[in-house]
Amino acid sequence: MDLLSIKDPSFLKGMSNQELEALSQEIREFLIEKLSVTGGHIGPNLGVVELTIALHKCFDSPKDKLIWDVGHQSYVHKILTGRACEFDTLRKFKGLCGFPKRVESEHDVWETGHSSTSLSAAMGMAIARDLKKEKSFVVPVIGDGALTGGMALEALNHIGHEKKDMIVVLNDNEMSIAPNVGALHNILGQLRTAGKYQWVKDELEVLLKKVPAVGGKLAATAERIKDSLKYLVVSGMFFEELGFTYLGPIDGHNFENLFENLQYAKKTEGPVLLHVITKKGKGFRPAESDKIGTWHGTGPYKMDTGAFVKPTKKQPPAWSSVVSETVRKLARKDERIVAITPAMPVGSKLEGFAGEFPDRMFDVGIAEQHAATVAAGLATQNMKPFLAIYSTFLQRAYDQVLHDICRQNLNVFIGIDRAGLVGADGETHQGVFDIAFLRHIPNMVLMMPKDENEGQHMVYTALNYNDGPIAMRFPRGNGLGVEMDEEFHNIPIGTWETLKEGTDAAILTFGTTIPMAMDAAKNLEKQGFSIKVINARFIKPMDETMLTALLEKNIPILTLEEAILQGGFGSAILEYAQSQGYHHAIIDRMGIPDKFIEHGDVDSLLEEIGLTTEEVIKRTSVLAKARKKQQRA
Amino acid sequence: MDLLSIKDPSFLKGMSNQELEALSQEIREFLIEKLSVTGGHIGPNLGVVELTIALHKCFDSPKDKLIWDVGHQSYVHKILTGRACEFDTLRKFKGLCGFPKRVESEHDVWETGHSSTSLSAAMGMAIARDLKKEKSFVVPVIGDGALTGGMALEALNHIGHEKKDMIVVLNDNEMSIAPNVGALHNILGQLRTAGKYQWVKDELEVLLKKVPAVGGKLAATAERIKDSLKYLVVSGMFFEELGFTYLGPIDGHNFENLFENLQYAKKTEGPVLLHVITKKGKGFRPAESDKIGTWHGTGPYKMDTGAFVKPTKKQPPAWSSVVSETVRKLARKDERIVAITPAMPVGSKLEGFAGEFPDRMFDVGIAEQHAATVAAGLATQNMKPFLAIYSTFLQRAYDQVLHDICRQNLNVFIGIDRAGLVGADGETHQGVFDIAFLRHIPNMVLMMPKDENEGQHMVYTALNYNDGPIAMRFPRGNGLGVEMDEEFHNIPIGTWETLKEGTDAAILTFGTTIPMAMDAAKNLEKQGFSIKVINARFIKPMDETMLTALLEKNIPILTLEEAILQGGFGSAILEYAQSQGYHHAIIDRMGIPDKFIEHGDVDSLLEEIGLTTEEVIKRTSVLAKARKKQQRA
Repeated sequence: MDLLSIKDPSFLKGMSNQELEALSQEIREFLIEKLSVTGGHIGPNLGVVELTIALHKCFDSPKDKLIWDVGHQSYVHKILTGRACEFDTLRKFKGLCGFPKRVESEHDVWETGHSSTSLSAAMGMAIARDLKKEKSFVVPVIGDGALTGGMALEALNHIGHEKKDMIVVLNDNEMSIAPNVGALHNILGQLRTAGKYQWVKDELEVLLKKVPAVGGKLAATAERIKDSLKYLVVSGMFFEELGFTYLGPIDGHNFENLFENLQYAKKTEGPVLLHVITKKGKGFRPAESDKIGTWHGTGPYKMDTGAFVKPTKKQPPAWSSVVSETVRKLARKDERIVAITPAMPVGSKLEGFAGEFPDRMFDVGIAEQHAATVAAGLATQNMKPFLAIYSTFLQRAYDQVLHDICRQNLNVFIGIDRAGLVGADGETHQGVFDIAFLRHIPNMVLMMPKDENEGQHMVYTALNYNDGPIAMRFPRGNGLGVEMDEEFHNIPIGTWETLKEGTDAAILTFGTTIPMAMDAAKNLEKQGFSIKVINARFIKPMDETMLTALLEKNIPILTLEEAILQGGFGSAILEYAQSQGYHHAIIDRMGIPDKFIEHGDVDSLLEEIGLTTEEVIKRTSVLAKARKKQQRA
Repeated sequence: MDLLSIKDPSFLKGMSNQELEALSQEIREFLIEKLSVTGGHIGPNLGVVELTIALHKCFDSPKDKLIWDVGHQSYVHKILTGRACEFDTLRKFKGLCGFPKRVESEHDVWETGHSSTSLSAAMGMAIARDLKKEKSFVVPVIGDGALTGGMALEALNHIGHEKKDMIVVLNDNEMSIAPNVGALHNILGQLRTAGKYQWVKDELEVLLKKVPAVGGKLAATAERIKDSLKYLVVSGMFFEELGFTYLGPIDGHNFENLFENLQYAKKTEGPVLLHVITKKGKGFRPAESDKIGTWHGTGPYKMDTGAFVKPTKKQPPAWSSVVSETVRKLARKDERIVAITPAMPVGSKLEGFAGEFPDRMFDVGIAEQHAATVAAGLATQNMKPFLAIYSTFLQRAYDQVLHDICRQNLNVFIGIDRAGLVGADGETHQGVFDIAFLRHIPNMVLMMPKDENEGQHMVYTALNYNDGPIAMRFPRGNGLGVEMDEEFHNIPIGTWETLKEGTDAAILTFGTTIPMAMDAAKNLEKQGFSIKVINARFIKPMDETMLTALLEKNIPILTLEEAILQGGFGSAILEYAQSQGYHHAIIDRMGIPDKFIEHGDVDSLLEEIGLTTEEVIKRTSVLAKARKKQQRA
């Protein structure tokens, strides 16, 4: 059929399993073709083709609520709800979002991006349904990786207690982004081989029938054993213990299995957990054979070979690599260094470290809170923990950073990856809040390097710092390709660096916006303005000597940051100027305005919010003119 | 023995059980007497007297690490580690802290306050121990309530997976602060009656011996059943599934039981969970019979009757009551209103609401993340969730507030209780960060009332607001005793209120610091200065009309807030003045400096950080003088 003609999922109702299988094949081909050009989360989506079709056939969306945990596996759902024609714009600026989006469709009832929220959302929806005395099904679809996130476990506990009607689909692909971690994963592993437990159960019934009727105590015991059968059958015991009816595990690529179990689940009272086994990347050989998560989310690739489309020229090293490899080098000389990642060993490029120091590398699963406090615990024992975490996911550990790490002033090095705009993943993933949520925490040191060479020295500085927590933010993507020093050196805490001298105005900036500032300054030079550019690499503490010198000389200041303006670096400058009594300081601030920034390529996003060289030139020239006028007066 | 003479716990080693029982009695009498004067967490501490003694006898602190989850049950530990003589100063300014504190003693290896951190900390310490190839025991003590916190479950999952040597003591008193909630609690309930399961196990072995030897398949089954015995024995199956060796449940007031099991645990490889049943308030009749948590933490009381020492004059209503009772009144007319609390129904004074609307009240347990996202889920279905949460605990849900509530712009009303300094609970509980961590989140509306009458109107406003999330912060303790209007009215979003006119300077403040500002203004009036005082009840969005008027007239501004200065309300004023081009505005800011504020009575704390009427007078007069000078010029 023509996927582009689909308006809503109602057409599925009349289709036979054979027709659905043909449809699955078409959807797979569509996805493999479209994503070869746009890139996207190919692996997770190929894994849920049959599951998504089955859910849309068995339930009536949007009356019934399909809730996609994390949400990057919602492409098939988007096709079935009338959005196939938009896939050429997938994850592009103003194009189709890679995650569920309520403005796109009434079928997207819940927006996601961060993991493990679906069960709590489903609980809210189920409570609402019951209070309104409505009849509908609430169906969160959660991966085995997301299940280890603390809030998912909080939700299981609450749902099980309240016995709410809900069908939780556990989409178990034995891998979240990286191979899964934790005891829960082992339990799921046991369940996957559940056939044998079913056999035990059958045999036990036969056995019990043969028990001699010795009456009294033993007979009572036999009864108890029958009651306990469900416990003997290891399948789902964990979930049954929490109050769920456990179904499965079943083959998530088999329509007959899916329909049978979904129908049974619909008839079952109280919360049901349907355990579905799927294969990530199913139907596309390169993605199917992926063991470490390379095909979780990708850029463009060649459909025939699965080869990734490589950039035409050699790229500078990835920021994550520079950081993790520097940590690795330092770990050779300092046994106290330990790396911790919440389920991102590949994204954080920690494979090298893990290979060389398997005992000193801890992937704790999707568990940012635990990750931060494990780091704190290590630091109390004079270890040197490196917590590798994305800016957006560090939001999950705000309280642990504050209450456990900073309040106890412990020597934890937080490597804040993907800081600033990340682009295609969109508003749930932009790393733009970390300055605002870290800067107000006492004891925190926060820095950002101008290039990967300074980055390696900052890593060295951080792991040699012994006065409390220290965090280095760095962007997504590749470095600038600068030459790397052989020897590491310490960067004194709280020192800035003058990149260009100037007397009419100063641009204070750090990280990714430094090139923009330099370009603007050079341009203004041609217009006759002398603009100072400062690499304000320490966001906290600031270089008060350098800042005071500017304020003393009455040089106007433009602050420039790829971060939210409220409470950001620019505000820190305002606060300092005010607290030191420089009431007449002329300060302007550029950064991210008070709104969530959608998906798209970073350049388009920067353009849209006015973070451009042109705007820097414009705003700086206003300052410089004011300065000149002041001097003439 | 003389408890005051205890220097460290080594004296316990030589004591008999009988002597330890006598010691327990003495410690109980000591606590009941001392806390009758100072107040404190009497219930939790009376519950762990024998357990704490047993742990200090069986382990060698500080070489072995005793980690107290939450930490308010560490009084007995403090007595045994040489701090009995300081109990007269318990929870007082510069006195003994009510929580573990590393500066107080080498035996306090981990500081707590917020719940559920102990297992992650223990994991960090266990990893450090093993990497250093040291021998020691790591012993977190966690309550049954704290176990439902997401990060505790994340930790169990990771510890079970890594099979780390660790002895987790589950202190199960069937109640955290309020009676516990959730499926986990039900499991613990089953375990408490484990005697019968032990019996099943014994009987089953007899039964299996009697199974006729029919050979082949059945014999194999019998073997499997033996393997599965541990599953049949329901005790601890949940924990065993996660990879722990489960011991218990045992009587936590019986030394023989405690020693036997602790010794066994010490010999067991891998993680052990020792389930100990204790009685909160044990040995003090009024506290023992407490069913709802009244005796969890108290003020002074009479030792003989257990009557609380009441203030001599009638107190205004508690802030929590005003808020919850207003929500209750509104819930009578709006069926969409639902209340959610993370384990604080009593603290948040939600008993009345729960009694009247049992179906619309959800205590989700210690699970702040889940609580926030349940509220978001409800809001997607056009319900009106009221999330009642303390400021300090809202830190746990920062990401959920940002990612789920604000990003989707959902109509959730967050009642932020205990905002500002809370006093005796100290640095882990001060509600001073919420402005800084909420103000930068797009779509958020944040307000604080000047008194309980305005408070009730703000609750009304919040529950009638349909444009996204809205939060009202309010302080710990009682209102001002103002008259309460009969009819509710709407307060236009983003409007401030002039409390006192003036032309020489303006004080912009809100909530608890308003009386201080009014006193200062009246005092300055006598000195010939005309000071305006504005009730800046909306922190976001601000009253830009009123603010612009001040800036236009060049009236100097003092901002005053009982909140951290970095990124706070004062910074918002600086940001606004800058963004509107008022470069010559004279603005001063008063608030909480960049450090963690320790425990003590709020007045002493305010004095120490300089948040006093005298300081407001001093700083405002500087501004007013500058203004007069400017006008003369």
